[in-house]
Amino acid sequence: MCPIIYGIHPVEEALKSSHVQIEKILVGTRTPNPALQSILDSASKRKVPVTFTTRESLGKMTKEAVHQNIVGLIKETPYADLSEILSLWRKEGTKSLFLILDGIQDPQNFGSLIRTASGCGVHGIIIPKDRSVGITSGVTKASAGAVAHVPIARVVNIATSVDFLKKEGIWVYGAAGEARELIYQLDLDINLAIVIGAEGKGIRPLVKKKCDRLFSIPMKGPLSSFNASVSGGMILYEVMRQRSAKQTVTMGNEP
Amino acid sequence: MCPIIYGIHPVEEALKSSHVQIEKILVGTRTPNPALQSILDSASKRKVPVTFTTRESLGKMTKEAVHQNIVGLIKETPYADLSEILSLWRKEGTKSLFLILDGIQDPQNFGSLIRTASGCGVHGIIIPKDRSVGITSGVTKASAGAVAHVPIARVVNIATSVDFLKKEGIWVYGAAGEARELIYQLDLDINLAIVIGAEGKGIRPLVKKKCDRLFSIPMKGPLSSFNASVSGGMILYEVMRQRSAKQTVTMGNEP
Repeated sequence: MCPIIYGIHPVEEALKSSHVQIEKILVGTRTPNPALQSILDSASKRKVPVTFTTRESLGKMTKEAVHQNIVGLIKETPYADLSEILSLWRKEGTKSLFLILDGIQDPQNFGSLIRTASGCGVHGIIIPKDRSVGITSGVTKASAGAVAHVPIARVVNIATSVDFLKKEGIWVYGAAGEARELIYQLDLDINLAIVIGAEGKGIRPLVKKKCDRLFSIPMKGPLSSFNASVSGGMILYEVMRQRSAKQTVTMGNEP
Repeated sequence: MCPIIYGIHPVEEALKSSHVQIEKILVGTRTPNPALQSILDSASKRKVPVTFTTRESLGKMTKEAVHQNIVGLIKETPYADLSEILSLWRKEGTKSLFLILDGIQDPQNFGSLIRTASGCGVHGIIIPKDRSVGITSGVTKASAGAVAHVPIARVVNIATSVDFLKKEGIWVYGAAGEARELIYQLDLDINLAIVIGAEGKGIRPLVKKKCDRLFSIPMKGPLSSFNASVSGGMILYEVMRQRSAKQTVTMGNEP
């Protein structure tokens, strides 16, 4: 079966995307509201076929999720190659920011991390083929359509990919609750890949060993960790903040 | 019906909590694993009655959520008073950090924000009585038990509460995507309350008007916003970072 994408915003984003291709759009009402109509207009411009069906049949397809009367069938699993991601970054000519997710299980967390990655200018996400949620419909929805904007590579072996990135001159820093070094103390304005581990379990020992550095986010109170997608947000925010601060300083210092 | 809490970690946290009281624990197995057994031991120390039932009946109670064979019945809705929250903070003698959630709808987001608030040392959360998810079982679970550690006040009128906080010498800053002022530019090492608006809609106009300042988190790419619980994480992280940086500087400067 085709992977699907549903909800007004996600389908709208996928239509604009360069690396996700919508094969067909299914609409669950004969009287589209303005937001839905605007998607149908842009589908028609892009020559994506639209079929009218019932609200109920979309309910079945999406397992009763909030589909807002619209479902898109996606042409193929939109995974990118690791080398493709790298060459996309090199073309951009900025310092790299990759996100390696070592075994995220929860579709909500994965989707949310993709959305955050898009907003923080991440060049690509790397996930393992096994022991990780893939790009499912739930993930696509939770990403608010961002899955269409951030290339995602699925690799057989994360440890090997870390080695590969390191050879390309990229520093690999892993988030680990027990690490003594605090995120505040790191210079993140370098060619960087951030590793985030699975919910509850963290980064696997072999991958952890491969990291150039491990760091933690300081935490108060009795709990032992932040939610994985929230930690990801904090870390990517810190990278953005440091890079923006350096830019400001550089600009300020220029004659 | 009693509100319930389920899952090993949440029930464990609630048992330790000072402001949530577990009335009774239901166990869905006659052969508890070590983690479950350790909770039963601590329940027995605290004289909380334990009843054995079936896995299936817990499934019904939790609407088939991952209950890990344990459900706790909570004595009463654990809301705090606004004045209670303020006096708890005053006792602590530090700069304030309150979180005002103006209409969060999604239990996952609310739970995640409570968890983050606990980890960032938030003194209390304020939510409106209407148009907002309350402390439900799903929220409790998503908070990983943090609901037991952060006092939450439910108020009739957020705008009035903002006025009240301002009179108490607390600055109220609101997160608004359209704000020109960036979070980087703010001094957050002050007596502070942060307002975060509803998913998609943001802070309501009247509440926005009451804020001392509005700020945004810079964002790249085509999407228009971060997930509400992720933005909350970024903002609370930035508060922690700034306060920790000031502490370091102060400590370093002392004779």
